[in-house]
Amino acid sequence: MKIVLDAMGGDFGPAPNVEAAVSAAREFGWEIALVGRQELIRPLLVQHNTANLHLPIVHASEVIEMGEHPAQAVKTKKNSSMVVGMQMVRNGDADAFVTMGNTGGALAAALFHLGRIQGIQRPALSAVFPTAKGWVLLLDVGANADCKPEHLLQFALMGSIYAERVMGIRNPRVGLISNGEEETKGSELVQAAHRLLKQAPLNFIGNVEGRNLPAGSADVFVTDGFTGNVMIKLAEGMGEFIKGMLREEIMRTTIGKLGGLLIKDALTRISKRTDYQEIGGAPLLGVDGVVIIGHGRSQARAIRSALMRAAEAVERGVVDAIETGLQALPKLRPAIANEPS
Amino acid sequence: MKIVLDAMGGDFGPAPNVEAAVSAAREFGWEIALVGRQELIRPLLVQHNTANLHLPIVHASEVIEMGEHPAQAVKTKKNSSMVVGMQMVRNGDADAFVTMGNTGGALAAALFHLGRIQGIQRPALSAVFPTAKGWVLLLDVGANADCKPEHLLQFALMGSIYAERVMGIRNPRVGLISNGEEETKGSELVQAAHRLLKQAPLNFIGNVEGRNLPAGSADVFVTDGFTGNVMIKLAEGMGEFIKGMLREEIMRTTIGKLGGLLIKDALTRISKRTDYQEIGGAPLLGVDGVVIIGHGRSQARAIRSALMRAAEAVERGVVDAIETGLQALPKLRPAIANEPS
Repeated sequence: MKIVLDAMGGDFGPAPNVEAAVSAAREFGWEIALVGRQELIRPLLVQHNTANLHLPIVHASEVIEMGEHPAQAVKTKKNSSMVVGMQMVRNGDADAFVTMGNTGGALAAALFHLGRIQGIQRPALSAVFPTAKGWVLLLDVGANADCKPEHLLQFALMGSIYAERVMGIRNPRVGLISNGEEETKGSELVQAAHRLLKQAPLNFIGNVEGRNLPAGSADVFVTDGFTGNVMIKLAEGMGEFIKGMLREEIMRTTIGKLGGLLIKDALTRISKRTDYQEIGGAPLLGVDGVVIIGHGRSQARAIRSALMRAAEAVERGVVDAIETGLQALPKLRPAIANEPS
Repeated sequence: MKIVLDAMGGDFGPAPNVEAAVSAAREFGWEIALVGRQELIRPLLVQHNTANLHLPIVHASEVIEMGEHPAQAVKTKKNSSMVVGMQMVRNGDADAFVTMGNTGGALAAALFHLGRIQGIQRPALSAVFPTAKGWVLLLDVGANADCKPEHLLQFALMGSIYAERVMGIRNPRVGLISNGEEETKGSELVQAAHRLLKQAPLNFIGNVEGRNLPAGSADVFVTDGFTGNVMIKLAEGMGEFIKGMLREEIMRTTIGKLGGLLIKDALTRISKRTDYQEIGGAPLLGVDGVVIIGHGRSQARAIRSALMRAAEAVERGVVDAIETGLQALPKLRPAIANEPS
């Protein structure tokens, strides 16, 4: 197993990336190539005991920053850690690429330098989401603002394969996000996608509503990249809003503050149940290689988890499974043409 | 002021509707017509002291139930409380219609029997939303799953007028929901709507993301009815998910339970800050009359609040203001045609 880690990715620079790479290399014996500016990486690496570990540094002089225009940055910064890392995967020099950097940059670099799996029309960004019933997958969360029904069908297939192989969910339930559970509900896009999904070799449970995501009513939630992006940001914002109010109102009185101390363990347990650091990252699905993208604010533990997701996706053959799974879908095409619109 | 209240609307039947009508008629001196099955309404009404109050019962033998197909129900149940109530507004026998019933039914009944304000292409369902900075308006939340850019422009105008006149927000900030704040972000629909909104006589603050809704970064959040519907249901679901986890984890230990008791006042204050009963209902904007729709689970206090919103919308001339406001928009049309797409 050889994973390339974007050592420059994330809000905290190379330090947590180097720490995570050392930790994962030691525990699992993987080779982890640190791609980025060697003059920044090397001084951090020598602070660790790396005897017998495989931690090559691959120099890349440029960095795609968080605020940059993704496609433009990928085109002009050919020596960036993202571009160099993706090329290593394409050339077979590495099995997977992991980054905590600019999501749009990773998407653009993957599209330009890794390409799509044959037959996949649009790769999708996914997000892993804590729910009342465990972690679920939501996709697309921003790669494709405008989608066609067949894109949603492919997202469903890819999400289902990832959920089964990496998240360990048997026969994952696939739900299609809509504005109502009835089959007749939804935009034109969703109604057409519903007809396709019904015929696909997937455990399609039908339309699901926004409330079904936190309820965990499905394992894979399929939607277009516009809606999915609004959803993850709204969910994040709701969490912050409620936490903020709770803190504010508890701190308002002395009795409240005492109560706050007593429920501290309960709050810690909630943090653990929803701890994204255990997951670390979510896949960019549909590109011809394993790419895992994590939060910019990730610390070493989260990055280490993301490396584990990458290794699982490689070992369990997610890319090949998507390519094979696609074979089962084309027979739907005549049905699409005949379907009343 | 004469308001028609759908006495049959909501999960709890006529009792809370009657109670709310009595309370509002007594406090404000309004005439409140109770439309619905008189044999159910009258026995409830006589239990109240209604001396000198104007509370006529308008008999309507049918009810559009919560689960019914809206358009079909409105067509076949011509004697339903919703149809009869809407007709009263159209005929000038009442100033506003208020219901806690089937939202789709109210929308269909309003479209068939009240019609649209001249120039409005699509009426929009709105929702009022608690945020870190007070209540904000989100629309459309489900009337139009597929929208055109001009629809979103009209939603923005209508929402802005309602926020200013009824919610008392001066020069309301209008935000367009998108998958990124930059002007170039968004689906084709949103990008085109952005260009229109920029030229409109509105306090347009640009694109906003999902997280901006609970943060209260705008006063009016504009989106298509598909995305808006997914958003309100996701927000509701997130609230329930977090509350459920909090309760579960607090109740897990004795110390937690004690802490839970001590933060009870804090939780009550949070409930008050986000108490939808104070708002009671949100308008169906763009139909030719004031229509306020509330939650099915409303009790008398919420219904009384909804009646107040209806009276405010009438007194402050929301319908006329929309009609007038539309005059300022048509000059945008040539710009739409010339705009690069």
